Amino acid sequence: MTHPLIVRRDLDFMLNDWLKMETLFQAPAFADHSRESIDAVLDLSEALAVDLFLPHYKAADAAEPRLEDGRVITLPAIKTALKQYAELGLFSAGFSEQLGGLGLPYLACSASFAFFGAANIATAAYAMLTTANARLIAEFGTPAQVEAFALPQIAGRWFGTMCLSEPQAGSNLADVRTRAVADGEDELGARYRLSGNKMWISGGDQDISENIVHLVLAKIPLDDGALPDGTRGLSLFIVPKILPDGRRNDISVAGLNHKMGYRGTANCLLNFGEGEGAIGWRIGEPGRGLQQMFLMMNEARIGVGLGAAALGYRGYRHALAYAQERLQGQRPGHAGSVAIIEHPDVRHMLLTQKAYAEGALALCLYCAKLVDQHDDPDAAALLGLLTPVAKTWPSEYGLAANDIAIQIHGGYGYTRDFDVEQLYRDNRLNPIHEGTTGIQGLDLLGRKILRADGAGLAVLERRLGETCDQAAQNADLAAAADALRAAWQDILRALWAIQNLPEATRMDNATAFLRAFGHVVMAWLWLDQARAASPAPADAFHAGKVTACRYFFEFELPKVGPWLAAAISASDLTGAMSNDSF
Amino acid sequence: MTHPLIVRRDLDFMLNDWLKMETLFQAPAFADHSRESIDAVLDLSEALAVDLFLPHYKAADAAEPRLEDGRVITLPAIKTALKQYAELGLFSAGFSEQLGGLGLPYLACSASFAFFGAANIATAAYAMLTTANARLIAEFGTPAQVEAFALPQIAGRWFGTMCLSEPQAGSNLADVRTRAVADGEDELGARYRLSGNKMWISGGDQDISENIVHLVLAKIPLDDGALPDGTRGLSLFIVPKILPDGRRNDISVAGLNHKMGYRGTANCLLNFGEGEGAIGWRIGEPGRGLQQMFLMMNEARIGVGLGAAALGYRGYRHALAYAQERLQGQRPGHAGSVAIIEHPDVRHMLLTQKAYAEGALALCLYCAKLVDQHDDPDAAALLGLLTPVAKTWPSEYGLAANDIAIQIHGGYGYTRDFDVEQLYRDNRLNPIHEGTTGIQGLDLLGRKILRADGAGLAVLERRLGETCDQAAQNADLAAAADALRAAWQDILRALWAIQNLPEATRMDNATAFLRAFGHVVMAWLWLDQARAASPAPADAFHAGKVTACRYFFEFELPKVGPWLAAAISASDLTGAMSNDSF
Repeated sequence: MTHPLIVRRDLDFMLNDWLKMETLFQAPAFADHSRESIDAVLDLSEALAVDLFLPHYKAADAAEPRLEDGRVITLPAIKTALKQYAELGLFSAGFSEQLGGLGLPYLACSASFAFFGAANIATAAYAMLTTANARLIAEFGTPAQVEAFALPQIAGRWFGTMCLSEPQAGSNLADVRTRAVADGEDELGARYRLSGNKMWISGGDQDISENIVHLVLAKIPLDDGALPDGTRGLSLFIVPKILPDGRRNDISVAGLNHKMGYRGTANCLLNFGEGEGAIGWRIGEPGRGLQQMFLMMNEARIGVGLGAAALGYRGYRHALAYAQERLQGQRPGHAGSVAIIEHPDVRHMLLTQKAYAEGALALCLYCAKLVDQHDDPDAAALLGLLTPVAKTWPSEYGLAANDIAIQIHGGYGYTRDFDVEQLYRDNRLNPIHEGTTGIQGLDLLGRKILRADGAGLAVLERRLGETCDQAAQNADLAAAADALRAAWQDILRALWAIQNLPEATRMDNATAFLRAFGHVVMAWLWLDQARAASPAPADAFHAGKVTACRYFFEFELPKVGPWLAAAISASDLTGAMSNDSF
Repeated sequence: MTHPLIVRRDLDFMLNDWLKMETLFQAPAFADHSRESIDAVLDLSEALAVDLFLPHYKAADAAEPRLEDGRVITLPAIKTALKQYAELGLFSAGFSEQLGGLGLPYLACSASFAFFGAANIATAAYAMLTTANARLIAEFGTPAQVEAFALPQIAGRWFGTMCLSEPQAGSNLADVRTRAVADGEDELGARYRLSGNKMWISGGDQDISENIVHLVLAKIPLDDGALPDGTRGLSLFIVPKILPDGRRNDISVAGLNHKMGYRGTANCLLNFGEGEGAIGWRIGEPGRGLQQMFLMMNEARIGVGLGAAALGYRGYRHALAYAQERLQGQRPGHAGSVAIIEHPDVRHMLLTQKAYAEGALALCLYCAKLVDQHDDPDAAALLGLLTPVAKTWPSEYGLAANDIAIQIHGGYGYTRDFDVEQLYRDNRLNPIHEGTTGIQGLDLLGRKILRADGAGLAVLERRLGETCDQAAQNADLAAAADALRAAWQDILRALWAIQNLPEATRMDNATAFLRAFGHVVMAWLWLDQARAASPAPADAFHAGKVTACRYFFEFELPKVGPWLAAAISASDLTGAMSNDSF
């Protein structure tokens, strides 16, 4: 492989030298695992990603899923790849042994997924959605529901979707209008008839899996037939494409979305209940739908970040390989044309990509480890705080890395002869789905900070402080430690200022706050990685980590100031402007 | 039209209220023109853009040019649109009456072009390349060459290309290997036989025009057969697809590039002289090729900026219309769902787009007026300084505006059902062609500043100071005037610091300097527009201009600090990192 998808040594560094994955094996749930067993999973993942996911990367982009006679037809190579993914046990790997899995830490599953996300995000997305769906049913479903609907997904025979949005209900799920009318009870639980239209359903139909398990947010009508207001009226239903008795459920594919990228993932408009109503079984209590769905969405948000990081990472490796091969221009001290990596501007772009792509991957793996530590209240609090960052930062900066990858390729990068243009198109989805960047900003500043108890912030402050204390011992990193402490104080000062803004305008610049906060988190994680890389023999790999850290502190951290100034701005600028002035 | 391509009132404001286009009519060359005559050209341009350019915007993206039997076949609607463009005299509009034109100011031509660039940049590009080609021949060619090769282009019957790059010679034209061997002389001048491969030739072949005039950079071998070194060895040749005697020249289409966007413009790899050598006539003296080509490239660079601005502008108008229609979420003081324009984050994104898109257009029009004033040494000096900014800033921020347009559309913006994803793909070319952003940074800091006589900087300083003086009279703008003066001092201080860096590293962060410089130029132009908008009755339109200016100073100008810090950084970061550490 000229362009490794994810550099294995880098992954090993993050998992073992930095995140100390072996500490997870002390927990009873992971006691059967070892570095060796997980290395074996990673070996197998990389090989499968290269052998069966990568080869149809372009083909699945060119041959989009199509709708024929109401059924979605996908490129056969997608099925071949996912069948092997199932046969190697990768759908089940993260589930407990009782559920037929290997009980692998989420951290290891994420590391494995990074290979597939880099190789072919659109094919890998089917697997990501399926495991997230099964995990939700395993968490909240009855034993019968788990057996009927989770186990076939854990085996990789059935796939799953999440059906939240509707044409009129995108970011605001309170507007969901899909109705679920009670229809008795059976061994699978309280049964309902659903009717409504669901939009943006990834994997909403396909010809890959034997069945599809839709998890559908819907509202149970009140006695007067009206739908309850707000998100508290949302309940969650299991609505399979094919019913347990073998009949087709009342679900039809009303259309396919034709996307800029991410094309291998069929994205559908589904109509539920055009006839007698689609049959579904409620999960848990009525009115808990959104809360339950958040379990899946939180996993999906980290998954989106991880996919975005993987796309950015692969683009970086392509650009690096190209920059080492492409001869153009002269440099003092070199005879003849030089490889473009020798030009300072290209080196700077490569270093930017490295800081973005490797940093984004590190953030997602850090959060994955927190998932594994969810019994620890500190870890859970920190995970809640970091989830909008893990969704957003890789989506924004993985994409920025892909943009730079095109730029380094020059005109070639703009053509479909190279992969970097597709990586860029694919990654452009990530700042949108599972909550746009704007929505993540509201989540971070509102739910996770201003309306929270401060536990997550306290954990972050402590861990960030520990990193600074350790880094301060190292002469090369001491200045960065000081800068990070100062940046953290800037964050706290900004939060103080935001709390003192009038309540009506406090959230107006939540996105700017998210950008600032994300960059400070990333500075912390880079410093922490540089610290982990420093005691080792100063080989080229470790030196690269330290330099990427330095890059981040020199060229990226200074951007935080303007963002925080925007976040605390009491400016009436946007509010005072009339709509006619745009 | 729900989404005007370019808002006519805005264009009128920029041309007349701000740039005082009527002052150009005092020059003898433009004495025949008036606001009325130019208004008529703009009316006709907008109507043609809407009627014949816009309708095939998506179709030309879906049905890329294809190669059949060595000939490029394009969508017929492209030919229909450009035929009408010719019949309405728009190819010739900017040429003098002696050349069959209307002698329209370049400023008016640019305003006209903005409609076509917004409607369909890939179709409009054929016209832009043709007029730039004809202008070069008119400037440097013999009367016979002008008659034979420029006039048919000015009439819009033949189209033109510029053939610079080769597979191994992209940004570095010194590496050009196309050979031009003397082959006698005839009434069209010194004749040569050319052989070599030219890459990235937009409009390199097509089935639209009767003939194609290639302007080819090539090297005349020395007596020993070797090619001269460097760019001083480059000469320029007129190489028509069909020779004056009706025979096909020895030029073949070796391939088509399949691009991410901008697809309607056929982009070719051309092989010259696979047989007996392609016949071409030298323009001007040997060794002057690059200098002559720069005339075309300078026009093309402003044209690229203008196209990028137009793409960004149209995306903004789409996003604005969508934000006014799309209902989602609640806001205090509003019953039921609100249009998303009411959400602060969306308003902020719209204002960002407005500042980027309208600002980019203003910059290009400002530079177009400087083109018209080229007899004034001040204007010429300022134009030279601003050309890399006019190329880069709209390319980077027009694209950023298109990115935001997708974001405002949410998932819909990522689908091909809406135009904003294509606008984004189309615009991604602009930071690459006619010199990447990195190359423009070297041009600005190196050729235009450090190695220049300072005349351009002095003019800019004077004009920027005049704007500040005038703005300072207005209480609403006085603070911005102070901020701009301070930012200009920061630029000068940075230049001082850069001059004191070791010569070998002075240019290392030229791109960061370009970003900072571009933002300061844009702050100046926004302040100058706000000044022009302020004395008018405070209607919604003018208030919008003032608010966009305030936005730029509050949220954009603060980004200059980190860029300048990077530009003057004596950091050894990229240099000290070994290639193995990436």
